[in-house]
Amino acid sequence: MPEKMKAVVKTRPELGGDWQEVPLPRIADDEVLVRVRATSICGTDVHIYKWDPWSAGRIGEQALPQILGHEVAGEVVETGAGVKGIHMGDYVSAETHIPDPQDLQALLGQMHIGERMKILGVDRDGCFAEYVAIPEVVCWVNDKAIAPEYACVQEPLGNATYAVLGEDNDVAGKSMVFVGDGPISLFAVGVARAVGVTNIFLVGKYDFNMEIGKRMGADHLLYANKDDVDRIAYIKDHTRGYGADIVCDMAGSTQALEEGFQMLRKGGRFTAFGVAGEATVPIDYNNGIVFKGCQVHGVNGRKMFDTWYRVRNLLSSGRLDIAPVVSHMFPLEEYEQGFEKMIERPRHAAKVVLFPDRQEFDAAQQRRA
Amino acid sequence: MPEKMKAVVKTRPELGGDWQEVPLPRIADDEVLVRVRATSICGTDVHIYKWDPWSAGRIGEQALPQILGHEVAGEVVETGAGVKGIHMGDYVSAETHIPDPQDLQALLGQMHIGERMKILGVDRDGCFAEYVAIPEVVCWVNDKAIAPEYACVQEPLGNATYAVLGEDNDVAGKSMVFVGDGPISLFAVGVARAVGVTNIFLVGKYDFNMEIGKRMGADHLLYANKDDVDRIAYIKDHTRGYGADIVCDMAGSTQALEEGFQMLRKGGRFTAFGVAGEATVPIDYNNGIVFKGCQVHGVNGRKMFDTWYRVRNLLSSGRLDIAPVVSHMFPLEEYEQGFEKMIERPRHAAKVVLFPDRQEFDAAQQRRA
Amino acid sequence: MPEKMKAVVKTRPELGGDWQEVPLPRIADDEVLVRVRATSICGTDVHIYKWDPWSAGRIGEQALPQILGHEVAGEVVETGAGVKGIHMGDYVSAETHIPDPQDLQALLGQMHIGERMKILGVDRDGCFAEYVAIPEVVCWVNDKAIAPEYACVQEPLGNATYAVLGEDNDVAGKSMVFVGDGPISLFAVGVARAVGVTNIFLVGKYDFNMEIGKRMGADHLLYANKDDVDRIAYIKDHTRGYGADIVCDMAGSTQALEEGFQMLRKGGRFTAFGVAGEATVPIDYNNGIVFKGCQVHGVNGRKMFDTWYRVRNLLSSGRLDIAPVVSHMFPLEEYEQGFEKMIERPRHAAKVVLFPDRQEFDAAQQRRA
Amino acid sequence: MPEKMKAVVKTRPELGGDWQEVPLPRIADDEVLVRVRATSICGTDVHIYKWDPWSAGRIGEQALPQILGHEVAGEVVETGAGVKGIHMGDYVSAETHIPDPQDLQALLGQMHIGERMKILGVDRDGCFAEYVAIPEVVCWVNDKAIAPEYACVQEPLGNATYAVLGEDNDVAGKSMVFVGDGPISLFAVGVARAVGVTNIFLVGKYDFNMEIGKRMGADHLLYANKDDVDRIAYIKDHTRGYGADIVCDMAGSTQALEEGFQMLRKGGRFTAFGVAGEATVPIDYNNGIVFKGCQVHGVNGRKMFDTWYRVRNLLSSGRLDIAPVVSHMFPLEEYEQGFEKMIERPRHAAKVVLFPDRQEFDAAQQRRA
Repeated sequence: MPEKMKAVVKTRPELGGDWQEVPLPRIADDEVLVRVRATSICGTDVHIYKWDPWSAGRIGEQALPQILGHEVAGEVVETGAGVKGIHMGDYVSAETHIPDPQDLQALLGQMHIGERMKILGVDRDGCFAEYVAIPEVVCWVNDKAIAPEYACVQEPLGNATYAVLGEDNDVAGKSMVFVGDGPISLFAVGVARAVGVTNIFLVGKYDFNMEIGKRMGADHLLYANKDDVDRIAYIKDHTRGYGADIVCDMAGSTQALEEGFQMLRKGGRFTAFGVAGEATVPIDYNNGIVFKGCQVHGVNGRKMFDTWYRVRNLLSSGRLDIAPVVSHMFPLEEYEQGFEKMIERPRHAAKVVLFPDRQEFDAAQQRRA
Repeated sequence: MPEKMKAVVKTRPELGGDWQEVPLPRIADDEVLVRVRATSICGTDVHIYKWDPWSAGRIGEQALPQILGHEVAGEVVETGAGVKGIHMGDYVSAETHIPDPQDLQALLGQMHIGERMKILGVDRDGCFAEYVAIPEVVCWVNDKAIAPEYACVQEPLGNATYAVLGEDNDVAGKSMVFVGDGPISLFAVGVARAVGVTNIFLVGKYDFNMEIGKRMGADHLLYANKDDVDRIAYIKDHTRGYGADIVCDMAGSTQALEEGFQMLRKGGRFTAFGVAGEATVPIDYNNGIVFKGCQVHGVNGRKMFDTWYRVRNLLSSGRLDIAPVVSHMFPLEEYEQGFEKMIERPRHAAKVVLFPDRQEFDAAQQRRA
Repeated sequence: MPEKMKAVVKTRPELGGDWQEVPLPRIADDEVLVRVRATSICGTDVHIYKWDPWSAGRIGEQALPQILGHEVAGEVVETGAGVKGIHMGDYVSAETHIPDPQDLQALLGQMHIGERMKILGVDRDGCFAEYVAIPEVVCWVNDKAIAPEYACVQEPLGNATYAVLGEDNDVAGKSMVFVGDGPISLFAVGVARAVGVTNIFLVGKYDFNMEIGKRMGADHLLYANKDDVDRIAYIKDHTRGYGADIVCDMAGSTQALEEGFQMLRKGGRFTAFGVAGEATVPIDYNNGIVFKGCQVHGVNGRKMFDTWYRVRNLLSSGRLDIAPVVSHMFPLEEYEQGFEKMIERPRHAAKVVLFPDRQEFDAAQQRRA
Repeated sequence: MPEKMKAVVKTRPELGGDWQEVPLPRIADDEVLVRVRATSICGTDVHIYKWDPWSAGRIGEQALPQILGHEVAGEVVETGAGVKGIHMGDYVSAETHIPDPQDLQALLGQMHIGERMKILGVDRDGCFAEYVAIPEVVCWVNDKAIAPEYACVQEPLGNATYAVLGEDNDVAGKSMVFVGDGPISLFAVGVARAVGVTNIFLVGKYDFNMEIGKRMGADHLLYANKDDVDRIAYIKDHTRGYGADIVCDMAGSTQALEEGFQMLRKGGRFTAFGVAGEATVPIDYNNGIVFKGCQVHGVNGRKMFDTWYRVRNLLSSGRLDIAPVVSHMFPLEEYEQGFEKMIERPRHAAKVVLFPDRQEFDAAQQRRA
């Protein structure tokens, strides 16, 4: 094992991250050390990279320097003395919500939203590096049939899967609207298609992403920033006049919430996944929720590990192909290109994967050729 | 059978209702005629009685004259030729949401929120009368152990029961907050107590109602209009720091929604039952729903007839005693006193029951003596 | 409208049925008359055709003559005076479980298993005829995109869909075993594939059916009547050693139940759909159910009309293609050939569709050419 | 801390246990040492005490000597270096199912039935001693309002609560039958009463236990070993002719299963909790499960820690009083009397609690005086 490794480190409270050589992480008794085979850029990483007000408040200058990143697939190269079920050589990914075992939520099967949980890459060093330390409790053993460039995005794909399935997993033979066309929404379209949603509407803004949404299986594309079509009327016209059985808000904007509840049929289900930009959002409480008799499912993270189990099965069986969403790949040291792709508008990227090891990068390029 | 009957009729688009002699209702083939033994005043009746903007818009002047009322218990005295399962002499109450059989919601087991359903006493003549016509599809056979003054309030008690049980009926051994102290909230406190909610908080404003709430089983009373106690901190202090497992909004006000979501623990359930006074309400979407990972259940009406079944069993078994909530009883012809009780502020009434037949009134008085 | 029609009539308590000219059915006020476009043969029809002990006991000689058949698609040509939501020209199928509206089960959303329900083609004349009378309450409006030869099998396809989805509809990303290779099991394989079951095992006996199962999407074929493979070990080997998440018994035999529970992982779900040939079946109650902590879902009929809704959406969207299961088609007057196909062993037929109108038959032949 | 302690040790493969002085348990890094305040005798302890074929096979002679017992309440007096959320002085009980963290069931929220879990007092030393070592992962923090003699029986009370609530926790306003009158059934009657079951039938054999069942809240007592009453007809007579909504088999006998399924209404829920004495049990699969359309919930252990949470709330709120079921208390050194009480027939004991410390015993005696 080497003593040093390369990593993307946030060192200063301003835009950017540094490519540095740093010591290898030391693992606690209940942790494992993972050699990173592939890692991907999340919107949260972009917030931290930009050092916007949210990250300044959430992480804080005093926590720097800190290694970025939390979406990962890699190989276990060292295990702590108290590790019980993860072994050297295991091919793993990491859930990023690290639970406190005595949190009420953790005790009740909701450890993904524990009151006192910590976040990988936010509350501790992340995985934009050659190695990363991972507590056993958040290790997930991958199926070897899943290539690293797809195994590393299972964490956001889990978000998408949980958003689609909601709290009750009852979606087969239903209609579904996704409001928002970010990468998690595009993953969600694919999941919806794989699990038997029979009428999929994607509401978005960016041609690049909408095109991916179509390849992932959307039946209908509706532009939120054009007025050529009455979106609500269109959806009712394609659902026998009732509206969709399920609406997933993946945007969090006032427009998304206003239209989203109108697109939903009475007695339907609304997934609240998007993050609002404002402290409060005006909601038509009566017609949108009370009289509509709908169920609103707040979705944050993914179920540990029910969602991971389904994601692994969907990928390893080949029922779900997420290749169209992984739009760009770079060696890790070219991370700045990756962040640029994530930041530019109009979008020309969905999901960006990075590889610390150039051989892994080359192999992935070949698989996707 | 007489040809005429006495009824409280809305005749003009202004405050009030008239005590008139009118013809007996004629029943359709799939309807029954019910002799009213007891009926009760709902908030909706008060809206119509006052002829406020909602009722002017919802019912409209052109629909008058119309008989008020929809909460009822009585005896079947005539059955239409196509009635299949209701018989002469049956002791029945009425669900007020009259479904359209081909509504998608009706076909999917959600007939209580059908897109095209009609409302008894709103879309057709009601039950503030000696007789009322009821479609078989909304007839519910009562248990004879339930006195008429309680059988007639099963419709709003069903609202309360559905609000407590939510969509999943999972409440045993949990903590619950009711925000609002109207009659349905007071019923709900009693239901919560009867079904094993182990920590019941009632947030209200009126001493008269709060006192009834205490008798119905509330463990904690918190005043929404006083600042002596930090209500959110109080609830967290009594729930090991987490907040309540379930919060039922029975008020719909901006304050209720703002505080209600803060009183709820992460991963809890929020019942949306109250009706907002404004077109939109500002909601802390991120912290209240998304990051909280909560479930919001929009509750309107009651399940047909799952809720009715539980209500009947709770009452007939004696597990639930709603006597404290039925605060006033009058002969029907004294309906004006009843409406005054419902309208006055501060409140000095919870639920008001009316009896078309004075003998029924006398018998009820004796039972409650 | 003609006064007479052709029909397959059970006239005597012995094998067979007669091709007769009989009067058109007369409809009650709450019924519609349907011109049959396509109808299909169910195992129940075969029981009655054979007049086996079950049908002799269930129907009884005194009920004869009676028209056979209950799986149907057709056009509404007459509506009773009390029909509310079905119209002339509607393209409908029929749910065969005719509920009693005051059955407790009907009131609680389980009308498909009402205590006093009647069965079309068993308790009243069926649809192996040019016309059939159908109560509105069991009419289901089809999507016109679904051809009659597929629309008529939605009733057994609904059985299959309910068996797959179980009571909770939670199947996405899970593994599933079907024990039995009859037509409903073959439908079920297709449904499972369409709704995101990621590992499908089909256990059967007949090459003809197993081949269809493969075309419908089974990942693994296991022969119940061969000992070349240890079936339980095989399934564990393909489920990381645990057994399948869900096992659907579609056979009801002692062997099916003994093996089925062993194929199921701890905490899994077992669908009990097959009908046993014996009064009691020996079951390993401790290891199969109690210690296994599993859920057993008894499935009979299909949910009215939740299952129908999903079936319609799966078919009309093209997500589910059932063509391979519809193995034979005949004009109705050649019904004897159809029954022979259903009875012969080893099987060389899955689902047989009959057409009263030869033009419909010809059109169907062309569509499938 | 002393170096030695008193304990009830199974030393030989024959009836009985020895009162010995043994070294204090040594804890692993992720365990705590608990000073036992109260412990209670389970049927499993009786099996081991008797050294019947089950225990000879399950535990095996080579595992002896081993300390008996697994139901416990006590105080944490030492914590391992890796313990995260349990602290010195905490008042705890222990879940007895010790999960393997990488078991599929544990990962999917079903750790109570993990494929590779270990059992306290079966696979390792138990708590019939002054001190016991407990892994943090199965520690449950008690509410101080719950006396030790009741806190120690939360493990079997959790069995009862899970049996009552089933997998879906949907019981409010329903009817329920318990077949079997052992201590867990008696607890279950109390739980059912506390959570709003409105009609409770207890089917048993022993006057002593039936009397306790009545005090716990059973509405109807039916003797399984007398023919004075047709038990199935009686239950139908008291459920409008349908049968009970829920039947809990707490006995596992052929008679219990035969009658139990007949007592259940169509579409009801059957809890399978009792353990059968035979390798297989004859079950009327068709009428009992398939045509009945029922749900069978296999219940083993209790949900970790959803059930514990509800149990704690029910006890600490005073909604549930289990005093009648705790029929006998002894100092631990008089354990032989306790076992005699558990073994004698006809029964004259329900639940027996033992106290290692005589002062705790005296205090409990006083509380119950």
